[in-house]
Amino acid sequence: MKVLVLNCGSSSLKCQLIDMEKNERIMKGHYDRIGGSKSSLRFNVRGEKKVIEHPARDFEEAISEILKLLVSDEYKVIKSLDEIGAVGHRIVHGGEKFKESVVITDEVIKAIEECITLAPLHNPAGLAGIEACRKLLPTVPMVAVFDTSFHQTIPEKAFIYQLPYKYYEDYKIRKYGFHGISHRYIANRVAEIKGRKNLKIINCHLGQGASLCAIKDGKSVDTTMGLTPLAGVPMGTRCGDVDPSIIPTVMKLYDIKPDEMLRIMNKESGAWGVSGVSTDFRDIERTAAERR
Amino acid sequence: MKVLVLNCGSSSLKCQLIDMEKNERIMKGHYDRIGGSKSSLRFNVRGEKKVIEHPARDFEEAISEILKLLVSDEYKVIKSLDEIGAVGHRIVHGGEKFKESVVITDEVIKAIEECITLAPLHNPAGLAGIEACRKLLPTVPMVAVFDTSFHQTIPEKAFIYQLPYKYYEDYKIRKYGFHGISHRYIANRVAEIKGRKNLKIINCHLGQGASLCAIKDGKSVDTTMGLTPLAGVPMGTRCGDVDPSIIPTVMKLYDIKPDEMLRIMNKESGAWGVSGVSTDFRDIERTAAERR
Repeated sequence: MKVLVLNCGSSSLKCQLIDMEKNERIMKGHYDRIGGSKSSLRFNVRGEKKVIEHPARDFEEAISEILKLLVSDEYKVIKSLDEIGAVGHRIVHGGEKFKESVVITDEVIKAIEECITLAPLHNPAGLAGIEACRKLLPTVPMVAVFDTSFHQTIPEKAFIYQLPYKYYEDYKIRKYGFHGISHRYIANRVAEIKGRKNLKIINCHLGQGASLCAIKDGKSVDTTMGLTPLAGVPMGTRCGDVDPSIIPTVMKLYDIKPDEMLRIMNKESGAWGVSGVSTDFRDIERTAAERR
Repeated sequence: MKVLVLNCGSSSLKCQLIDMEKNERIMKGHYDRIGGSKSSLRFNVRGEKKVIEHPARDFEEAISEILKLLVSDEYKVIKSLDEIGAVGHRIVHGGEKFKESVVITDEVIKAIEECITLAPLHNPAGLAGIEACRKLLPTVPMVAVFDTSFHQTIPEKAFIYQLPYKYYEDYKIRKYGFHGISHRYIANRVAEIKGRKNLKIINCHLGQGASLCAIKDGKSVDTTMGLTPLAGVPMGTRCGDVDPSIIPTVMKLYDIKPDEMLRIMNKESGAWGVSGVSTDFRDIERTAAERR
């Protein structure tokens, strides 16, 4: 079976077509700046790379373009869309509802919608990808894979914040954790390599977003990210954990409103916020050397 | 020499009179609810305890009452106030200015005043205690001992938050750490017991306020508290570290202003906030058992 995997971000889409029997990636694509006039697709078929300038107003247009290329005479990745046996959607936030990957139904879509308050930037994009595939590939079964579900084994003592308990009762404010798809893969892969499952692993997922996960016997028991992917270690543009009293203090000192404060902590902090140079350590180190 | 040690809080004063040669605590006092009509002093002289109901409108009245008791016919702790050779004041926040304890001068007082923005609740109380002693014991030398100064050896990489750097440039927002008087004492005491100084210690100061400190060769290299004593491990009523994005999110959801948010995180969180029962684990465990 061939599986189309989609990862819809706020304005980008990453996708792969995987031949499950051969364990082979046939196609890899990265659609950028969806919704803008300059959107383009980096398309990689069996090692051959190409950049295709093709505006996509939304995820439906982007996915439609990708499907067209897959069956096009130029690429002939597959003969017909019927070869796609399933679509996998990466969904950022599954809240407390989703403890594992699920086949997408109307009910599942509703539950993902209910998690929008927990991930206002990410879940709508995931839902847009699901809706687009429902139109374009109406008969193909779809599965939602959550970035949070691997962490649903984290015990209460580790996921309850020491804030007034009503925040959890009223709005389910708790630690969820992210990068679960990656942490779960590593947990399984290490067990495979070691030939046993009773392992204690501290896994570090390091990128512009970064999180650590404590894995015991294949299960997540704690992780550094929290209600949102802002918490934990400092990242490219995210501050990670800081003294929480700094937030209201800075809001007062600079007269910053909550939404703007969230933006600053997510987009203007981390390596970028401290260096004022780049989110990339290579750029920071080079600039530091030049200024020395 | 006999040293009078004062720890002025927002509405309470703790004091001890210590005979340095004999390494003996002669008197211990705890003045409560200063400024209220019900203020009282728990007074303990060489093991004999007494509660004295005596209203004190301010720190000057409280310290004056304590000095009167010290030389009174009833207690005869000392014959004359001349026996007090020095006064030590615990000051919460020394900012970046104070890297060690200092003899109090007009300049020092000015510098402690400049740190008020960093510790708006605590430093004014410390200053009030200093002013009172200047009036009541004008010829006795005084020393300021800071809760932050032991942590001034923490390296930049550990004290700079990964927030926009201008917060540090504009307002010196950084990690300071607290409980330094306690962490320093333990560092010295452990070195004494072990008979060597090249030690790595993780010290846990556990109480209603709690912090951990990493000590290397007698110096603080990192600590859990931050700009304020809110950060780090969860405490009696303080939340400790949480996903920073929760703060603006909760402020939006419940329409909470910055000062109120600071109060909630400092006074309505921690063990109290989660349990709704008490800050004391014995109460929480008993109540949990009763409700089971």
